[in-house]
Amino acid sequence: MKLENARGTRDFLPEDKIQRDKIVNTLREIFETFGYSPLETPVLERFDVLSSKYTGGAEILKETFKLTDQGKRELGLRYDLTVPLARVIGQNPNLKMPFKRYQIDKVWRDGPINLGRYREFLQTDVDVVGIKNINAEVELIEITRGFFQAIRLDVLIKINSRKILNGILEFAGIEKEKQLDATLIIDKLDKIGLDAVKQELRQVARLDEQQVKKISEIFSISGKNEQKIISLKMKLKEGEAQEGLKEIDDMLTLLSGDEFDNVIFDPSLARGLAYYTGAVFEVVPVDNKIKSTVAGGGRYDKMIASLLEREGDIPAVGISFGVDRIIDALELKADAKTVTKIFVIPIKTYEQSLEIARRLRKAGIKTDIDMQGRGPSKNLDYANALGIPHVLIIGETELKQNKFKLKDMKTGKEELLSMADIVQKMKE
Amino acid sequence: MKLENARGTRDFLPEDKIQRDKIVNTLREIFETFGYSPLETPVLERFDVLSSKYTGGAEILKETFKLTDQGKRELGLRYDLTVPLARVIGQNPNLKMPFKRYQIDKVWRDGPINLGRYREFLQTDVDVVGIKNINAEVELIEITRGFFQAIRLDVLIKINSRKILNGILEFAGIEKEKQLDATLIIDKLDKIGLDAVKQELRQVARLDEQQVKKISEIFSISGKNEQKIISLKMKLKEGEAQEGLKEIDDMLTLLSGDEFDNVIFDPSLARGLAYYTGAVFEVVPVDNKIKSTVAGGGRYDKMIASLLEREGDIPAVGISFGVDRIIDALELKADAKTVTKIFVIPIKTYEQSLEIARRLRKAGIKTDIDMQGRGPSKNLDYANALGIPHVLIIGETELKQNKFKLKDMKTGKEELLSMADIVQKMKE
Repeated sequence: MKLENARGTRDFLPEDKIQRDKIVNTLREIFETFGYSPLETPVLERFDVLSSKYTGGAEILKETFKLTDQGKRELGLRYDLTVPLARVIGQNPNLKMPFKRYQIDKVWRDGPINLGRYREFLQTDVDVVGIKNINAEVELIEITRGFFQAIRLDVLIKINSRKILNGILEFAGIEKEKQLDATLIIDKLDKIGLDAVKQELRQVARLDEQQVKKISEIFSISGKNEQKIISLKMKLKEGEAQEGLKEIDDMLTLLSGDEFDNVIFDPSLARGLAYYTGAVFEVVPVDNKIKSTVAGGGRYDKMIASLLEREGDIPAVGISFGVDRIIDALELKADAKTVTKIFVIPIKTYEQSLEIARRLRKAGIKTDIDMQGRGPSKNLDYANALGIPHVLIIGETELKQNKFKLKDMKTGKEELLSMADIVQKMKE
Repeated sequence: MKLENARGTRDFLPEDKIQRDKIVNTLREIFETFGYSPLETPVLERFDVLSSKYTGGAEILKETFKLTDQGKRELGLRYDLTVPLARVIGQNPNLKMPFKRYQIDKVWRDGPINLGRYREFLQTDVDVVGIKNINAEVELIEITRGFFQAIRLDVLIKINSRKILNGILEFAGIEKEKQLDATLIIDKLDKIGLDAVKQELRQVARLDEQQVKKISEIFSISGKNEQKIISLKMKLKEGEAQEGLKEIDDMLTLLSGDEFDNVIFDPSLARGLAYYTGAVFEVVPVDNKIKSTVAGGGRYDKMIASLLEREGDIPAVGISFGVDRIIDALELKADAKTVTKIFVIPIKTYEQSLEIARRLRKAGIKTDIDMQGRGPSKNLDYANALGIPHVLIIGETELKQNKFKLKDMKTGKEELLSMADIVQKMKE
């Protein structure tokens, strides 16, 4: 056997998998607290499903892993969780709306693997389908805030609306064919600053001086969320911009407590994907080595209907969390290579020690026991190497006095305790 | 978009996924209580890894989904979790032994999909690598018993040893080339009965009358576990059989409590796969429409070393749980199409109702709220259709008196309660 992983794929040994599971479980818990239910769809999809009309762009198909089954049917590995969501909605006309679901699952992209990209990676999507108004956006922002607070990662949650951006482009009089380029350049404002944005608008998007001046006028507006909204309301008179500003205003009204201090209205935020139709969100860590987005999403009222080739909108809002980057940003250090909290070391007392291990396990304590009759020092080395926090040493003497030696592996402290005390201590 | 799943794959809508998650979480919890840690390996493996020398048989490669990446490297979707485990062990020489891991992940087989087989299905493996003695087997049997007790599925846990089976074949004087056929026929004893086994041994395995008589002599032995062991110890004098019988005896000694009443020594149990070298286990439901195996495994001391092309043994024991069949055997009825426990119905009080939803969520209660301003009767229909157990109706009157109407959707009973009482009641 060649001892190699497929390119762009990774193993997660217990020390890493334990950390990943914690993050994923925190996400799952918070999604469910807000009434989002789990959905599972297959990894294998028919290729014609994956290649359906996708407003996100056709380039993704170049990075789609293709294969066939025995019957020569064309299949692919899913590249996102949104196309399967659309298929499920199409296939289940009796689904009650709103449909609030989350899915935490792997997706595949056969792209270049430089810059830390992977070909197989975890995607975490939470979406609500069937709600037209901003209550849905507010709920997703609350989930986002709650999650990052729970994992104690300091972040900014930036929000904007595509409607406002469209209004800005119109205000500056930018021609249709230059709008996409201009949007993508404006999106970089936070990273490269206003001067560099202006230069790119001139040189890359080929805007004229008047247009650049108008854009610059908008993005010189600063201040608190409310101030920005007021200033923009005065400048952007078109219906769509006013609508977008009102939506942002309404969202911020419902997000008015101190706990939402980190929700920032940022009129330059675009998010690359073309399919957003209203609000967009993006989450970036504060004072962190990771400067890039750790979560992002927005409203996409047209995409599902377009995939299903239906008339009209199927309103939807969603947000995706990037588990890999979140773990990087947390700089979690694996503290253990095992889930075990206590390691039982029998000294020629296997049968009785097993009974004690059984009692600990019944109390819900993650317990391991030496099964090989190794000597105490080898067992201590093993517990130490795996980072198990406590060991329990059980010899004949301990059995006689019905008290057992509990050793704290970090401090080295040993205590002689009754079983009840040990269970109590381990449960703390 | 063609509204179809790839053949042999399934979606799990919330009502089913919630049930599956419960079973999977119960497994995860019990594995971790016994000190088994999670491992994650990629779905995509190099094809040369998947096609390594596999003592389980080469036929599996015919059912392996093959694909290539951009660089034309040959890849495949994993067909089991054991080959990846072997690769991980080979790639990580510093892994501490014993290595106790579980993995709950999908695997793929491009086989016929009649008889309810799927091409993409969940596999749940728990294995301990590095332990030669039966303490490992005992631990896995305890996990198995604990899991089925937790989910309240009445089962028999049958155990045997390949060493005993080999001893029986030798005792009956069966030639090497007939041993595999004979083993597979003997394995069917429970299903087809002794007479049919004898007939197949004659007609299919081409055993002579003397051989059939000897086999029949062994399998006429009945009684309790200890009695069977004693009788077999007297008949099977060869070293290997005696060794196997002693192992089973030692296992049963450590599994002597009442809670292990359902562990049955069954000398006819073989399990199809050729790679088992010692103990084998098989779990079948009792008094259930599902008659087939819901979990199975055994000791395979040679397989990992063989995959890694190493001299000597790398001892390992494992067991796999079949989540699909377990769910079928439990005959679980989906009681809800959502995780939500309480649905808040604002009557023109969205902002205040949202505050109340926030309080419930902070208390960890899975809470949903109508975001669309629908009328009460539409909202009750929605809650009813999704199977949400409670709704909370909040109008101006309720806000003034600071008491809210909690409706039990099953009984129809309504109570006017304070927030503290509602939280209390929902937490019960």
